[in-house]
Amino acid sequence: MTSELASVRPGAAGGPGGVSPPASFRIGVLGNGTVGAAFVELLGQRADAIADEVGARPEISGVLTRSRGDFGDILDRSDLIVEAIGGTDPALEHVLAALRAGRHVVSANKQLLSRHGDELFDAAAASGVQLRFEAAVAGVVPVIRVISETLAGAHIERVNGIVNGTTNFILTAMERTGATYEDALAEAQALGYAEADPTEDVSGLDAAAKMAILARLAFGAPVHVEDVPCEGIESVTAEDIAYARELGLSLKLIGSAERIDGGLAVSVYPAFLYAGHPLAAVHGSFNAVTIESPAITEITLSGPGAGGSQTASALLGDVISAMIPPPFAPPPAVPTRLVTDTVSAFYLHVDVGDHPGVLAQVAELLGLQGVSIKSVVQKGMGVDARLAMVMHPVLESKFRAAVTLISRLEFVRGEPRVIRVIEGVFE
Amino acid sequence: MTSELASVRPGAAGGPGGVSPPASFRIGVLGNGTVGAAFVELLGQRADAIADEVGARPEISGVLTRSRGDFGDILDRSDLIVEAIGGTDPALEHVLAALRAGRHVVSANKQLLSRHGDELFDAAAASGVQLRFEAAVAGVVPVIRVISETLAGAHIERVNGIVNGTTNFILTAMERTGATYEDALAEAQALGYAEADPTEDVSGLDAAAKMAILARLAFGAPVHVEDVPCEGIESVTAEDIAYARELGLSLKLIGSAERIDGGLAVSVYPAFLYAGHPLAAVHGSFNAVTIESPAITEITLSGPGAGGSQTASALLGDVISAMIPPPFAPPPAVPTRLVTDTVSAFYLHVDVGDHPGVLAQVAELLGLQGVSIKSVVQKGMGVDARLAMVMHPVLESKFRAAVTLISRLEFVRGEPRVIRVIEGVFE
Repeated sequence: MTSELASVRPGAAGGPGGVSPPASFRIGVLGNGTVGAAFVELLGQRADAIADEVGARPEISGVLTRSRGDFGDILDRSDLIVEAIGGTDPALEHVLAALRAGRHVVSANKQLLSRHGDELFDAAAASGVQLRFEAAVAGVVPVIRVISETLAGAHIERVNGIVNGTTNFILTAMERTGATYEDALAEAQALGYAEADPTEDVSGLDAAAKMAILARLAFGAPVHVEDVPCEGIESVTAEDIAYARELGLSLKLIGSAERIDGGLAVSVYPAFLYAGHPLAAVHGSFNAVTIESPAITEITLSGPGAGGSQTASALLGDVISAMIPPPFAPPPAVPTRLVTDTVSAFYLHVDVGDHPGVLAQVAELLGLQGVSIKSVVQKGMGVDARLAMVMHPVLESKFRAAVTLISRLEFVRGEPRVIRVIEGVFE
Repeated sequence: MTSELASVRPGAAGGPGGVSPPASFRIGVLGNGTVGAAFVELLGQRADAIADEVGARPEISGVLTRSRGDFGDILDRSDLIVEAIGGTDPALEHVLAALRAGRHVVSANKQLLSRHGDELFDAAAASGVQLRFEAAVAGVVPVIRVISETLAGAHIERVNGIVNGTTNFILTAMERTGATYEDALAEAQALGYAEADPTEDVSGLDAAAKMAILARLAFGAPVHVEDVPCEGIESVTAEDIAYARELGLSLKLIGSAERIDGGLAVSVYPAFLYAGHPLAAVHGSFNAVTIESPAITEITLSGPGAGGSQTASALLGDVISAMIPPPFAPPPAVPTRLVTDTVSAFYLHVDVGDHPGVLAQVAELLGLQGVSIKSVVQKGMGVDARLAMVMHPVLESKFRAAVTLISRLEFVRGEPRVIRVIEGVFE
């Protein structure tokens, strides 16, 4: 019974011109927080239109909350489970049970997918059901679908994204108002863009989970969040942002996943972008992802990051896709080497005392490691002088070696500050 | 035989772990120009990877050129037809024959879809086969798939797009270098971004055909290219662009489709955008589309416009989707009223002679029609004075009435120049 309903096709039951009422497609919802509640509301508004289009009417068969409902009971009465609990406990147990029982699952849970992807995809494939998760990355921005379907025929080389709205809101505020990190964070918290404990977002961990999911899809490799080195925005200063602006650069928290020498490099770090880069124009709490492949050059997708109604809309898009087969399942992941030392351009900021030939000495140490300077701004005078410069692309280990030598120069005060720079097509 | 092959599923024939070789999925290609040849080449490169993923191996069963091949013969030997001829004759006849014979069709042909959409979609639905056309609008930028699938659950309110790369290249060049329209067009022609006869692009006709296709999908209405009023970029001046820049505006050729009072407004026109608008940062020959819906706020998709390899990649994405059912067919189009008088902000440029109180008189005529001025730049002196201003949003007919009155003022020289202004979220 369940599988027949789950595979209903357009027009199969009461489509346009039919006389019998459309079959129903039963959806069990786990969780009734912001996302779960928004999904139930949106489904109510759109059920008639979906029934007209798909030939089956989506209906809520039950909602599991902390205090109400029985999971087994809801599972029995559902063709598909929408998981909107978040976290891994009890979400993992419920989602695995649903997949093993032959139910499609639609989830917004990045933790679940980035930590337990292998187990979940295997369970979906074994049961021949769909596991969809557009809402887990960049809200309603359809990056999962585009990588899995539109670009199924392309060889993806690189995925770069702004996949955390909180940090982009904070960096945009710092850039626009000259605010400190602390003040911009407080503003984000006051406006509801950041949690009371913002660690998950500002440390880059949230972005790392999302990049693990994107890397798995784009490259067919079993990447987990633990494999993704991440650097957050906590130590970004208003000064870095102001200097970089003079060099034509704008700061973003970038998640990056790319093929390098037969391996993969996946990481999250703050990076400067030139004004022409497609991600440089992504402001406030918006998310965006750029996908590069030789056949297509690059595609950029952008839109609001996760919010209750955006996430609900992404869940509903996945539910509709699940109502219309076929199963969507990425091919089995193939183990791939992870690369950590990669080529990048860099921004370097050094506080230097009153000393003749400062720039020449810094440049010499860079040159010894094969690092060449692209542009430089010298600020202040005497004991307060600062150098802010951008390097041409170089292997990170070479550049870091030069920075270590620079930090030992007697006239250098404090630790030199390093931020990656991403060059764009239109730079 | 054909329909069995056409509905092969992942794992059905020699998928991962299988022992028999994968079944073949036979593709007939119509046309061997830039796009057709690039498709055949790309398919050759990716066939193995697709066979692994989908469980059937895509193979070229024949290529129809002007001088070689027989259409009926190729049709007999194909599960799917890729139409890369362009234009409507003989493309329409061949595509209809293929659909009626139960073959899926993938096409990059905007003329065909925007002129004969009703007939084509009806034929596909009657045969239960897929008609896919991602490549017809914005190349590999997946706007068709996102509107049809990701946003199937959303109520789309508006679609705005830069859907013609040639005009965007020209306008970007004018903005960056101060070049005249004629010089920028010549540069585009020299670089291969514009045809020797650029009329189709610069008149807005190409964009109008694409907007007809997008409007049909987004709103389920039978919009045809003949229904889309379009204004091109031929009369845009370097002066307009320079003045507008001082007002923080950037010029684009915009295709717009939106719901208004239960009807639809679909049109193409040059428009100024504020710097924060998601389409303002789309440069050169790139395309981009912004889709707005209450549930999602807005999504923007951008990437390279049509080029041989991009179009081939979009065709291949559609072929893979067609290899994995279900049929993709939009629901039957519902006739909808087309609205032509809409609310917009406007830029107005008036050459005025040496006369006291010029601005006051112009402002008074605008005010009589309920038009209020948002910002103004006054240029030059004496007989050469010019006013460039931006109005707050107003019904177009009211604004045009005011402009007619202004054009009759004795001190106004030449025709006042009017260009729409689109306000963005982040303005």
